[in-house]
Amino acid sequence: MNIVLLGSGNVATHLGQALVDAGHRIVQVYSRTEHHAASLAKPLEAQAISELSAVQTDADVYLIAVKDEAIGAVAAELPQNRRGVTVHTAGSVDIGSLSPYAGRFGVLYPVQTFSKVKPVDFSVIPIAVEASDEHAYAILKGLADSISARVFPCNSKQRLSLHVAAVFACNFTNHLYAIGADILRGHELDFDLIRPLILETAEKVMVHLPHEVQTGPAVRGDIRTMQRHLELLKGQSELSDLYQSLSKQIGRK
Amino acid sequence: MNIVLLGSGNVATHLGQALVDAGHRIVQVYSRTEHHAASLAKPLEAQAISELSAVQTDADVYLIAVKDEAIGAVAAELPQNRRGVTVHTAGSVDIGSLSPYAGRFGVLYPVQTFSKVKPVDFSVIPIAVEASDEHAYAILKGLADSISARVFPCNSKQRLSLHVAAVFACNFTNHLYAIGADILRGHELDFDLIRPLILETAEKVMVHLPHEVQTGPAVRGDIRTMQRHLELLKGQSELSDLYQSLSKQIGRK
Repeated sequence: MNIVLLGSGNVATHLGQALVDAGHRIVQVYSRTEHHAASLAKPLEAQAISELSAVQTDADVYLIAVKDEAIGAVAAELPQNRRGVTVHTAGSVDIGSLSPYAGRFGVLYPVQTFSKVKPVDFSVIPIAVEASDEHAYAILKGLADSISARVFPCNSKQRLSLHVAAVFACNFTNHLYAIGADILRGHELDFDLIRPLILETAEKVMVHLPHEVQTGPAVRGDIRTMQRHLELLKGQSELSDLYQSLSKQIGRK
Repeated sequence: MNIVLLGSGNVATHLGQALVDAGHRIVQVYSRTEHHAASLAKPLEAQAISELSAVQTDADVYLIAVKDEAIGAVAAELPQNRRGVTVHTAGSVDIGSLSPYAGRFGVLYPVQTFSKVKPVDFSVIPIAVEASDEHAYAILKGLADSISARVFPCNSKQRLSLHVAAVFACNFTNHLYAIGADILRGHELDFDLIRPLILETAEKVMVHLPHEVQTGPAVRGDIRTMQRHLELLKGQSELSDLYQSLSKQIGRK
């Protein structure tokens, strides 16, 4: 397919490369910032553009991978006489946000966290697909299938719940890692000491459900150990509160 | 070395096997419950005992791997005329808890979560060592070095902080995975959809520090997305509160 890629951030970069690797053609890369457009367009062998008026009208897919709050504005300025399906890639933006600006539209939401520093294997990344109509769905499903083995239909409400679940299991989890790092640093210990534990904890839930493998003082009801821990956290009321409220939730399960 | 292993739970099982694999001899396995002692003693080719009065007096190390609250009671009942170093394996129990019951004593704390279902590679597990005196330290350091490449000295306060950090980065993290699973189930989505994300999040901090790789709406200050998420969590006040307090902490960093 011929694809216009709108955006040059992490999602645009990884998705653009995966699409090219699967044999599609990125015809244009748009970014407001000219050199951002140019530096992504080059490896994708696409034309770099920094004006939405320069977007071609005959592509199959217009893939909007920009910040959530900019999706509407980008869609609004696309040439109105374009063909093809207009798509965004956000977890928490309703499909309806594209309806004022496109005839056929939809969503491709890759359920993964992307960073510039680390390549990802797209074939194992689940991709949630939603579309305005059956024809658009078939096009988007085909596009997603060409880069991932785990494509599934998902309405906007489900997609939002997926994003919220991801915030808990990924963003908030990383924050707990950061709290661990802070506590260790406060006692002149290196974060590296808990890296094996962090990996093991994640690997356990690759084959089990989390509630089956919960460990630690809270699930054992080990009040004495929890008291010792709270003693150590004395004076750090935010951490104490978090420790107590998470322990209480675990203990109740 | 000749070792008496006191306990038959996860830590005793994994540690006992690692010690045998490294060429040490487990001479006895003690558990209050006779068949627990027997079923661990068998693969370790040790004698099973269920009375502490039957513990031999000429071992090099008495390794107490029982529940935290039972450590003192087990140490108190060991034969008083025994030789060797008495050791516990707990993260949050002060080394001083052994001093009334032993001449030479110490701690070997493996920084890992153990479960019966999954084998572990002990060689990469950090082991914190503390001892009553230099002679005991040398013995315990030697023992730990024989099964792990990551042995380090660690006083009781540091060890407690390590355990607290582990509770945040492992036990609480698993609880966040469980919250993710609950949210998905509530919208008829499978936990499997966020497994790649969970693994990626853990793998990122194997090479980076957590605060360097924090992602998500909170760190971006993306208020609109957070509002949408809180909308979805409406009526689940505990989850809303947790979402807001963790987001606030991340946003402040």
